[in-house]
Amino acid sequence: MKLIRLAPLLVLLSGLGLAQKAVPATLSAGQFSTVYNFFSFAIAAMGASTIFFFLSRSEVGPKYRIAMLVSGLVVSIAGYHYLRIFNSWDAAYTLKDGAYVFSGQPFNDAYRYVDWLLTVPLLLLETVAVLALPAVQSRSLIWRLVIASALMIILGYPGEIGTLTARFWWGLASTVPFIYILWLLWGELGRAASRQKPEVQLYSRNMKLLLLFSWGVYPIAYALPMLGITGGEAVIGVQVGYTIADVLAKPIFGLLAYAIAITKTRQDLG
Amino acid sequence: MKLIRLAPLLVLLSGLGLAQKAVPATLSAGQFSTVYNFFSFAIAAMGASTIFFFLSRSEVGPKYRIAMLVSGLVVSIAGYHYLRIFNSWDAAYTLKDGAYVFSGQPFNDAYRYVDWLLTVPLLLLETVAVLALPAVQSRSLIWRLVIASALMIILGYPGEIGTLTARFWWGLASTVPFIYILWLLWGELGRAASRQKPEVQLYSRNMKLLLLFSWGVYPIAYALPMLGITGGEAVIGVQVGYTIADVLAKPIFGLLAYAIAITKTRQDLG
Amino acid sequence: MKLIRLAPLLVLLSGLGLAQKAVPATLSAGQFSTVYNFFSFAIAAMGASTIFFFLSRSEVGPKYRIAMLVSGLVVSIAGYHYLRIFNSWDAAYTLKDGAYVFSGQPFNDAYRYVDWLLTVPLLLLETVAVLALPAVQSRSLIWRLVIASALMIILGYPGEIGTLTARFWWGLASTVPFIYILWLLWGELGRAASRQKPEVQLYSRNMKLLLLFSWGVYPIAYALPMLGITGGEAVIGVQVGYTIADVLAKPIFGLLAYAIAITKTRQDLG
Amino acid sequence: MKLIRLAPLLVLLSGLGLAQKAVPATLSAGQFSTVYNFFSFAIAAMGASTIFFFLSRSEVGPKYRIAMLVSGLVVSIAGYHYLRIFNSWDAAYTLKDGAYVFSGQPFNDAYRYVDWLLTVPLLLLETVAVLALPAVQSRSLIWRLVIASALMIILGYPGEIGTLTARFWWGLASTVPFIYILWLLWGELGRAASRQKPEVQLYSRNMKLLLLFSWGVYPIAYALPMLGITGGEAVIGVQVGYTIADVLAKPIFGLLAYAIAITKTRQDLG
Amino acid sequence: MKLIRLAPLLVLLSGLGLAQKAVPATLSAGQFSTVYNFFSFAIAAMGASTIFFFLSRSEVGPKYRIAMLVSGLVVSIAGYHYLRIFNSWDAAYTLKDGAYVFSGQPFNDAYRYVDWLLTVPLLLLETVAVLALPAVQSRSLIWRLVIASALMIILGYPGEIGTLTARFWWGLASTVPFIYILWLLWGELGRAASRQKPEVQLYSRNMKLLLLFSWGVYPIAYALPMLGITGGEAVIGVQVGYTIADVLAKPIFGLLAYAIAITKTRQDLG
Ligand SMILES: CC1=C(/C=C/C(C)=C/C=C/C(C)=C/C=O)C(C)(C)CCC1
Ligand SMILES: CC1=C(/C=C/C(C)=C/C=C/C(C)=C/C=O)C(C)(C)CCC1
Ligand SMILES: CC1=C(/C=C/C(C)=C/C=C/C(C)=C/C=O)C(C)(C)CCC1
Ligand SMILES: CC1=C(/C=C/C(C)=C/C=C/C(C)=C/C=O)C(C)(C)CCC1
Ligand SMILES: CC1=C(/C=C/C(C)=C/C=C/C(C)=C/C=O)C(C)(C)CCC1
Ligand code: NA
Ligand code: NA
Ligand code: NA
Ligand code: NA
Ligand code: NA
Ligand code: NA
Ligand code: NA
Ligand code: NA
Ligand code: NA
Ligand code: NA
Repeated sequence: MKLIRLAPLLVLLSGLGLAQKAVPATLSAGQFSTVYNFFSFAIAAMGASTIFFFLSRSEVGPKYRIAMLVSGLVVSIAGYHYLRIFNSWDAAYTLKDGAYVFSGQPFNDAYRYVDWLLTVPLLLLETVAVLALPAVQSRSLIWRLVIASALMIILGYPGEIGTLTARFWWGLASTVPFIYILWLLWGELGRAASRQKPEVQLYSRNMKLLLLFSWGVYPIAYALPMLGITGGEAVIGVQVGYTIADVLAKPIFGLLAYAIAITKTRQDLG
Repeated sequence: MKLIRLAPLLVLLSGLGLAQKAVPATLSAGQFSTVYNFFSFAIAAMGASTIFFFLSRSEVGPKYRIAMLVSGLVVSIAGYHYLRIFNSWDAAYTLKDGAYVFSGQPFNDAYRYVDWLLTVPLLLLETVAVLALPAVQSRSLIWRLVIASALMIILGYPGEIGTLTARFWWGLASTVPFIYILWLLWGELGRAASRQKPEVQLYSRNMKLLLLFSWGVYPIAYALPMLGITGGEAVIGVQVGYTIADVLAKPIFGLLAYAIAITKTRQDLG
Repeated sequence: MKLIRLAPLLVLLSGLGLAQKAVPATLSAGQFSTVYNFFSFAIAAMGASTIFFFLSRSEVGPKYRIAMLVSGLVVSIAGYHYLRIFNSWDAAYTLKDGAYVFSGQPFNDAYRYVDWLLTVPLLLLETVAVLALPAVQSRSLIWRLVIASALMIILGYPGEIGTLTARFWWGLASTVPFIYILWLLWGELGRAASRQKPEVQLYSRNMKLLLLFSWGVYPIAYALPMLGITGGEAVIGVQVGYTIADVLAKPIFGLLAYAIAITKTRQDLG
Repeated sequence: MKLIRLAPLLVLLSGLGLAQKAVPATLSAGQFSTVYNFFSFAIAAMGASTIFFFLSRSEVGPKYRIAMLVSGLVVSIAGYHYLRIFNSWDAAYTLKDGAYVFSGQPFNDAYRYVDWLLTVPLLLLETVAVLALPAVQSRSLIWRLVIASALMIILGYPGEIGTLTARFWWGLASTVPFIYILWLLWGELGRAASRQKPEVQLYSRNMKLLLLFSWGVYPIAYALPMLGITGGEAVIGVQVGYTIADVLAKPIFGLLAYAIAITKTRQDLG
Repeated sequence: MKLIRLAPLLVLLSGLGLAQKAVPATLSAGQFSTVYNFFSFAIAAMGASTIFFFLSRSEVGPKYRIAMLVSGLVVSIAGYHYLRIFNSWDAAYTLKDGAYVFSGQPFNDAYRYVDWLLTVPLLLLETVAVLALPAVQSRSLIWRLVIASALMIILGYPGEIGTLTARFWWGLASTVPFIYILWLLWGELGRAASRQKPEVQLYSRNMKLLLLFSWGVYPIAYALPMLGITGGEAVIGVQVGYTIADVLAKPIFGLLAYAIAITKTRQDLG
């Protein structure tokens, strides 16, 4: 590791200093509850999978333990952020005459981007670890992936909290590193899958599909407010979309990594 | 696993976006306290059984550990939801002149259905794991059970928070997959029990009975408001019924699975 | 286990639905603080002994681990309930001009009975486990003990929250199963002690004495309001009495079981 | 253990039922913050040392593990009490025009004495365990130490919350068992140190000095209000004094016990 | 260890008794949120790295476990303090008409210095442990480092909460031990790196660079208010600067120590 590579991380952190996004003044009870229940669902899913990944470490062979540990870290970090997001959502609205009106406490969307800054590199690390690429090669791969993903997140944030026009242009900029990551991983994941024994090949292919599918949900959720969906509908769409994507990309993805690790452990034993 | 099988899960999640059910405007102190104490009882039962299942993993043979882990996950998820349900109940009423009056904060019944969405598949997985069916056969069995149970829950929810008529028709629809699950499990559990050594047979039969009995409590509790029971009585009946069913179906069921695992471990050793 | 034996448990749970007991309108600062400090003391004692029992499991031989685990569960459940009891007590009074006046928030005594419903069967299980009776014999013994203790608790509760006359008659009814339990255990504990090696005999005898002594404190505390002690004094007497009894019957009793387990482990090794 | 020896413990517990001490009506921001920051410092120190002692158990030989466990229990109990003390201090004062005025919520000093009741016997147990005296001898020693320390604490409390005259006479009474403990330990610790191998002797001597020094801080802090120090100064002196003493007597003392255990473990191995 | 060496620690603790620093009366939403989000980021980073260091202990060889344990303690202590800092920041401002105005609750900067008092000695201990200097030599080195760092922190605090002039002179005084520490470590770290096998040399050099770089950020952040940066800008600069420095000096530094430990473990095995 050359220390200079930490530089983009520092630059990136400076992106956190932006104001909060405005949320609609009123939501119907159904709209407020949808988001509320999805956030609570995410907390339960992240919490339970945290326990699962940490306790299952001892079931897999030593060289796969790091992947389980990383899975556990990812979902525990996400659990922390969903707790904060849940509380922020709860504080942002007050029930009045059957509808939920904005309380004056801004809903803090930055938690999500802070979460991604920490969990996306870990997920990429886990993916590469599960692929079991030769060490030197995977190091350079990881650095390219980490830097591209940091760029993707940092470029997306100003759009998330800005006007629709800002959303469009920053989103477009963020899509460049996004495409680069998918292109890099598609190749690697394909090559890695073909190197595996048959039983693992199916999982590896599923992993590739799940990764591409779940990552693809993020920009779609992001784009909703630009597709004519407005007010409460847009907020609900974005939050529910990101939450579904997070559940797929973190605990479900981790379960696939666990299935691969368990199967490879059995193969290694004979 | 074909990834396409995740599709119903996604559809299902969209059912969370519904408004909260109305609760009675006034409850007697005894009515409020009954539910309050049952919820606290459930928290203690789920919390203590969480510790028990996680710490007892090391006592059973390696191949039964996954069942203990799943038991532990089920009761920890339920413990989280009962904490939220407890707080929601507490916030929904305020003591005034010896009676409890509605505070304006709706009681959130969705926690229960979110809980079931996560714990019912895990319980089915555990049941199949304890039965120790051959791997290929159990995979297809699990998928049929999981999809049927997801349907059962998603179809029940609109009835839970709707009018009595809605309650009837959605409940009826939900009963179809419910019957299918019982029919599937009845056969499998019977066949599995007959394959076991005598000592385990008794437990397996108990497991079958407990599963059918506890699962049967849910639709009965659900039906109470349609049987002429109204107001506070109906709410108390539903909440207490679900709570008793949850304690039977989760920690008590898990204890039976533990008893089977311990007995089989001893048999395996000699 | 015949499943039908779960029936009394269900009946018993229905006893939780009763209103809260009235507490005195005013307490002196000393009276309020006495109870407050005893509750905090119980939290610390239960919390620390929870850690102790769980961490000490690995120090005793495999067959004694279940007793340590059960001790740990008992004190963790009690710790949870003392936290709730503490908060309930704190919310029930407000300081005004140097005295504590009732705030309108009822003090919830049901936590104690819910706690006993969960912990008394566990304690009986632990006692029988430490006695190491032959399996068949101990099963029938356990069921008789568990059912009698459930009856004892459920019959005591209406008296706890009722008038003095109710207290007398329900307390009397509760005393019948209580005597039955003591009579059963006295014989078993005596026989068990005489079977042990000398070093363990002393502990077994202490266990017998401690069990009888600590269990005896509960009905005495219960009886205080019927002995001419009224108002603040009665509440203080009951709460402090129950708390002392709980500290003796749970963590101190568990320490004795630990001492027996450690000594037997050493004997088994050589 | 003769059960009758539990009697003083019961008597002692009755000392908890006393009213709270009055605190000054106003503190300067500097005075309030000093105590506030010391309490937070103690929480962090107790919390971190709890983790350290529990995780380091596996590093020392089996016979020294009990000492590490006891160290861990002592600092976890103290951590709990410092959390409560911190919150009590925070609630006792409100900032008004740059100064902190009494809020009407009394500062509860009893937490400290409840803490000592639980932790001092444990510390004495640990000291004797680390000295590794022959079992029979150490049992009688422990009982004399425990009873004397209980007397010391129970006699000190009425002085802590009473007038200056009460403080003097109860403090004097409390000093009698205090001197007895120091006299007992001085001899034992000296004899024990001389039995050790050279490397351990230095630690044993340090332990003796640290014990005497840290225990000596308590009566000095206690005496401050009788030495012409009044108002805010006296409260600050007492609280800061007790906190420094607690950090020395619990985590720092435990670290010395750890150093002895590690060194002896190495000596035992070769 | 000569006990007399604890003396400076005691002196040092007396520095905690100073009033809180004034913060600007108004912050823009962006300024408030920047600090808020950085604090939450630090909590997540410290929490996740706490789990990582504690769970990874078992992956490294026995002699490197102490370094992992110390890393874990450092980040858990920091996690606790960032939680408190976060809450203090949140309580210090209230949103009014789109801007954040001072609430009257002072922002408590002392947490940071209390944190450093505990974590800096631990970090120095860890550094020396990872360098694996001969025991006698490292003891004297540790004491010199610990005392110098305590002086550095205690001399910096009056400047942190004082006027700009105070900030200058106390900062200057604090810089003297700072330079001494860097000078000591530079030499030691260089000599240690040259003794290592090639693969470890790179990490050791990185460790040296990271240590010097991250430690260097603290005085720079401290100096910002003296460089013409005022009001909200200055507070944001100081808080964000310290937080970035803390993330580099604690979890990232710990990761490097982990990398060294893993590599050396592999070398030791063959
Ligand atoms: C392309 C794109 C985006 C992509 C975000 C992604 C792909 C996030 C992935 C997050 C993950 C995998 C988190 C798991 O912990 C943004 C930022 C929404 C902005 C719009 C353009
Ligand atoms: C048939 C039926 C229902 C069945 C619910 C069941 C059977 C729930 C089981 C939950 C379990 C086992 C949870 C354990 O974690 C509903 C939805 C009440 C709606 C009415 C019809
Ligand atoms: C005889 C009797 C009682 C006995 C209670 C007992 C014996 C409780 C034991 C509780 C324990 C051992 C808890 C430990 O976890 C009551 C209900 C007060 C009612 C009055 C008559
Ligand atoms: C002599 C004396 C006292 C001594 C207190 C001591 C010696 C306390 C030790 C506490 C410890 C060691 C706690 C560790 O967990 C009192 C009660 C202040 C009252 C005044 C006289
Ligand atoms: C020189 C100097 C300072 C240096 C502070 C440092 C070097 C702190 C390091 C903290 C660490 C490493 C914490 C990790 O846990 C101060 C006090 C800001 C005051 C101004 C002068
Ligand atoms: Na709200
Ligand atoms: Na997220
Ligand atoms: Na309420
Ligand atoms: Na449920
Ligand atoms: Na109160
Ligand atoms: Na109790
Ligand atoms: Na305050
Ligand atoms: Na104390
Ligand atoms: Na605020
Ligand atoms: Na810091």
